[in-house]
Amino acid sequence: MGKAKRGIPSKIEDFNSWYPFIVEAAELVDKRYPIKGMDVWRPYGWKAMKLIDSLTHHEMERTEHEEVNFPLLIPENLLEKENALVSRLKRAREEGVDPDDLRDEEEEGGFKKEVYWVKHAGENELEIPMFLRPTSETAMYTMFPLWIRSHKDLPLKVYQMVNTFRYETKQTRSFIRVREIHFFEAHTAHADEECATRQIEQDLEIVDNLMHQLCLPVIKAKRPIWDTFPGAFYTIGIDALMPNGRTLQVASCHHYKDQWAKAFNLTYENLDAKQEYCHQTTYGMSERLMGAIVGMHGDDNGLIFPPAIAPYQVVICPMIRKNSEVDVLGKANEVAMILKESGLRVKVDSRDIHAGQKYFDWEIKGVPLRLDIGPRDIENNTAFAVRRTGGKEPLSLDAISKECKKVLDEISDELRNRANSHTENIVTKLTDLNEVEDGKIYEIAFDGTDAHAETIERTTGLSFLGDSTEPYSEETPCFMSGKLTKRRVILAKTY
Amino acid sequence: MGKAKRGIPSKIEDFNSWYPFIVEAAELVDKRYPIKGMDVWRPYGWKAMKLIDSLTHHEMERTEHEEVNFPLLIPENLLEKENALVSRLKRAREEGVDPDDLRDEEEEGGFKKEVYWVKHAGENELEIPMFLRPTSETAMYTMFPLWIRSHKDLPLKVYQMVNTFRYETKQTRSFIRVREIHFFEAHTAHADEECATRQIEQDLEIVDNLMHQLCLPVIKAKRPIWDTFPGAFYTIGIDALMPNGRTLQVASCHHYKDQWAKAFNLTYENLDAKQEYCHQTTYGMSERLMGAIVGMHGDDNGLIFPPAIAPYQVVICPMIRKNSEVDVLGKANEVAMILKESGLRVKVDSRDIHAGQKYFDWEIKGVPLRLDIGPRDIENNTAFAVRRTGGKEPLSLDAISKECKKVLDEISDELRNRANSHTENIVTKLTDLNEVEDGKIYEIAFDGTDAHAETIERTTGLSFLGDSTEPYSEETPCFMSGKLTKRRVILAKTY
Repeated sequence: MGKAKRGIPSKIEDFNSWYPFIVEAAELVDKRYPIKGMDVWRPYGWKAMKLIDSLTHHEMERTEHEEVNFPLLIPENLLEKENALVSRLKRAREEGVDPDDLRDEEEEGGFKKEVYWVKHAGENELEIPMFLRPTSETAMYTMFPLWIRSHKDLPLKVYQMVNTFRYETKQTRSFIRVREIHFFEAHTAHADEECATRQIEQDLEIVDNLMHQLCLPVIKAKRPIWDTFPGAFYTIGIDALMPNGRTLQVASCHHYKDQWAKAFNLTYENLDAKQEYCHQTTYGMSERLMGAIVGMHGDDNGLIFPPAIAPYQVVICPMIRKNSEVDVLGKANEVAMILKESGLRVKVDSRDIHAGQKYFDWEIKGVPLRLDIGPRDIENNTAFAVRRTGGKEPLSLDAISKECKKVLDEISDELRNRANSHTENIVTKLTDLNEVEDGKIYEIAFDGTDAHAETIERTTGLSFLGDSTEPYSEETPCFMSGKLTKRRVILAKTY
Repeated sequence: MGKAKRGIPSKIEDFNSWYPFIVEAAELVDKRYPIKGMDVWRPYGWKAMKLIDSLTHHEMERTEHEEVNFPLLIPENLLEKENALVSRLKRAREEGVDPDDLRDEEEEGGFKKEVYWVKHAGENELEIPMFLRPTSETAMYTMFPLWIRSHKDLPLKVYQMVNTFRYETKQTRSFIRVREIHFFEAHTAHADEECATRQIEQDLEIVDNLMHQLCLPVIKAKRPIWDTFPGAFYTIGIDALMPNGRTLQVASCHHYKDQWAKAFNLTYENLDAKQEYCHQTTYGMSERLMGAIVGMHGDDNGLIFPPAIAPYQVVICPMIRKNSEVDVLGKANEVAMILKESGLRVKVDSRDIHAGQKYFDWEIKGVPLRLDIGPRDIENNTAFAVRRTGGKEPLSLDAISKECKKVLDEISDELRNRANSHTENIVTKLTDLNEVEDGKIYEIAFDGTDAHAETIERTTGLSFLGDSTEPYSEETPCFMSGKLTKRRVILAKTY
């Protein structure tokens, strides 16, 4: 029905058609740019993305990270240190030895297969090829040794928001799998492993704050060793849930211990005047957050933006009646001014078109709260509020800012409740390897071997997201070995 | 003397050493990144740049431009339209005919010589090579025809702040001549030439507002035809003055008429249901603004930041005396809080080092106002204010925010006065082609031919910046032909 009336595919029945339709219909991006996987951010989408960024900036400031901006291009020869490190860690794992006991060996491949190369400039071939950053470890850790001399320079906590690039060969999807990525990355260096571990804890706290504002429940899981970021001691992945039951990694934190520091010779002079290796972490997020918001909150009428990042939190539709002498537009503008002064983002839609068309447009664009103001409302000193999440009520114009903020808070709560109950519905205990339902996410108690894990992944077609950061409170028998454990492992189909 | 004491080269005597020294000593950028012309923005420099950007955002919002974000990479084949247009305009000029009477012809060269190429991704050679945008006309005008259908879609006014790239083969200089450029570009489409002309007028008004805040006097000149942007009907260059008398183009506006619209088939349906070509403009600025600020305002003690974009407008140095029981640090923090709440950007320097070292650090970083607070000051209920531009005075703590804002305004005025008098000193009338002084900028009344202009440029070694947007108020004889004219042409050595 929805589809017939409005041309929007059904979200539940056909998420794979709904998603690409909605990101363009809501004018978040335009996919018609002639390179696949490189979309144009339109004003409405970019505004929302920048509002997400400003939440992140705020958290970075609160936690005393400083913003930097590194060059996009990285000379190929810098990659050699990284490749050697990754290859050594891989061999150490395979051979079951301490990586410090192995020597570096050149390995072809790795990142090289996933990057865009600049080998020519003007009419010249470059002496040293360069690549477009997929992420900035290599670029940054080349500079860190110049900035860190003594324990007084620690911790070093920097971040940047930049464009990064990946040569995706799989099917691209707006925000979810793109070739130019709007990216956030924080990089820190610390005196020792414990300090770095505390940084990871702070990162996860920042994630919680952000996800609260975005009304997104997430799964935080320590990735299994085979899915740990190259060069990392461990990786914690933060996965949002999409309505089709797939998970979408929207952020990740990596504890590097001193592994990268050794590769890049990043040391500091400690209190005893001795040189020590730094311990490092990174924390990354991307425009995938936007993909998760679209996917989790939208419905068959379009987007629903969480109020914290809605480009317009309130849209006012003046209901101008012919033959009425009431200055409806004047009143609408007056109300808009009051709301703006109280810090809300507001739009007056004064277009000379049918009210129904306006409702349709702002519903598809996910504005959380609409206020209709007509002569009757003005007479009653009210505005008629329509929540994008459902529900209508008159609001008194005497305290309109306070009323709107209250309603917006309730809309945020409603979005959180919906998302949480959706999550509770699709996360379930795995009881039988051969009875895996499509669209479900599974949890198991697990303390088995890598071989056990491989059996599970192969049989179910699910991937190990890893150990939930919220383990079981009581010892539970491992799904495979029967050994008692508190480890709660999450399995899902992933994007 | 200054040099011996502080190690800073003299700005007046050796600007070419002073400039690169100061941008690194003040921690604006780090030039040690292993690609020449691609600097790392350090936190202090990036903060200042983002404050410049936020002034621009504010002007863009005021004038109803919307922010977009286009892909960095542009497929080579899109460049063909642009090359054909540029080549046709060039031939029309050479042959003295209407460009509409000429057909497109492929021309090799142009932008192709100045861009970085991506011809490989992973292990593949790309079918269609792509280049890193030097600017976004081609990318945007590929999309505009999809967004503009009727007169109702006009004007279209968009802008973006992005990284752009130029393969510079000349010597690079931080902010001034770099290979990755932090860039601002506004692009507009209008119904007719007059509307586009009005946009250029608005752009110049925006330039005036920004330059007022940055305390930078500029020369606005309509470039001569041989220095007009490729594809433009005319170009207005905005040049800042550097202390060595060279000019630095920090912004430019281009009126495209319908020339690009014809190349990209950008039309709209007018009120009579007929298809018409759009008329377009662009307005660009870059991190060169930072270079101009450094160059114009700094002195032998370091940077001087205009208060509007100073990362810290006020630095507070608590003067802790041993054996004093007064809580100096507590008072300093209290004052900082009051100032912050009034909207000022403030830093308390509580490092346990010599006051002289603190003064040195904040002077080199160009903080406009320093407040020293010691036990005696607290007793007197004052803070001792030291202006970076010179002058000291006690300020009452009772109205400290108001007092600081007043002093900061006076510092801005002082910077404007200094910059204006510097400009008046170096801009002078040219009286003899063979008597051109180094470090001077010249103006002439000019209504001569291109051949005349060439003679002037060759003899003097100066470049035509073009016709000042402020012509003479009275008819004046042309420097070359003696013909009466109001055209005031500016000549300078340029960066």
